[in-house]
Amino acid sequence: MYERENCSAARALELVGERWSLLIIRNAVFSGMKRFSEFERRLGIAPNILAKRLDGFVSDGLMELRPAEDTAGAHDYVLTHKGRELGLVIMALTEWGDRWAAPKGPPVYFEHDTCGGRVHVTAGCEECGQAPAVAEVGVVPGPGANAEQRKRRRT
Amino acid sequence: MYERENCSAARALELVGERWSLLIIRNAVFSGMKRFSEFERRLGIAPNILAKRLDGFVSDGLMELRPAEDTAGAHDYVLTHKGRELGLVIMALTEWGDRWAAPKGPPVYFEHDTCGGRVHVTAGCEECGQAPAVAEVGVVPGPGANAEQRKRRRT
Repeated sequence: MYERENCSAARALELVGERWSLLIIRNAVFSGMKRFSEFERRLGIAPNILAKRLDGFVSDGLMELRPAEDTAGAHDYVLTHKGRELGLVIMALTEWGDRWAAPKGPPVYFEHDTCGGRVHVTAGCEECGQAPAVAEVGVVPGPGANAEQRKRRRT
Repeated sequence: MYERENCSAARALELVGERWSLLIIRNAVFSGMKRFSEFERRLGIAPNILAKRLDGFVSDGLMELRPAEDTAGAHDYVLTHKGRELGLVIMALTEWGDRWAAPKGPPVYFEHDTCGGRVHVTAGCEECGQAPAVAEVGVVPGPGANAEQRKRRRT
């Protein structure tokens, strides 16, 4: 879909940029959901769309199909490490929505399991240790840059 | 689209979950793009889709339409604070893609303008100061939770 893009955000969106994708992953990461019927019921999503998304997640290595432990013949969609790490993207998206699209206040907060503290997503600079605002962050070519991207280097 | 969801991630996706949305915002935030023709050329996106997305961003307060300073009659799509803050979501998505979908290495790195240090997106706990992995983060009802969400509180 974004063939012209040599961009990791575009590649991520190829995997999770379709309707419902990130909300399915959200329920898997933060509600521990694994079963087709549970995703269907809680999300109110059409079963053909849900099947397409879950099968895509399995093909793309975001989930693994495993026999269910509690029901013979049933199977679960279990997040891989790759899939689970999308939790950070979902947290960033949620906090943006909390700030800009939650008139009644945040529906949920993120909490650190081990200490009960509130968890937030921030940018952090590994050099000075500060948390820069987006306006203070630029992009520079990395090892995977193409010729055009190298040329565009800001000076 | 996600009417049943009382969720800030779902509300954010209502605004930027359509195809191309986050890549248009990416170019605005990190390449300073403002002009219709420039988005069209760089993204290779169909002009009718691009117009629909940009108009939606203006309606939703992510961008403002302003007369162009350099060309009479032209106008620019300028990010608002609300729109610019999506940069953090895009950074999180990019870093996920760098880790899981960039066989040649990251196409770009994020850099702190003021000190030149590498910038990363992380979760941080405001209580203990640690950076918890996604698996160590749970959700608890916030002030905007509905009755069902309060009931689901993990114990």
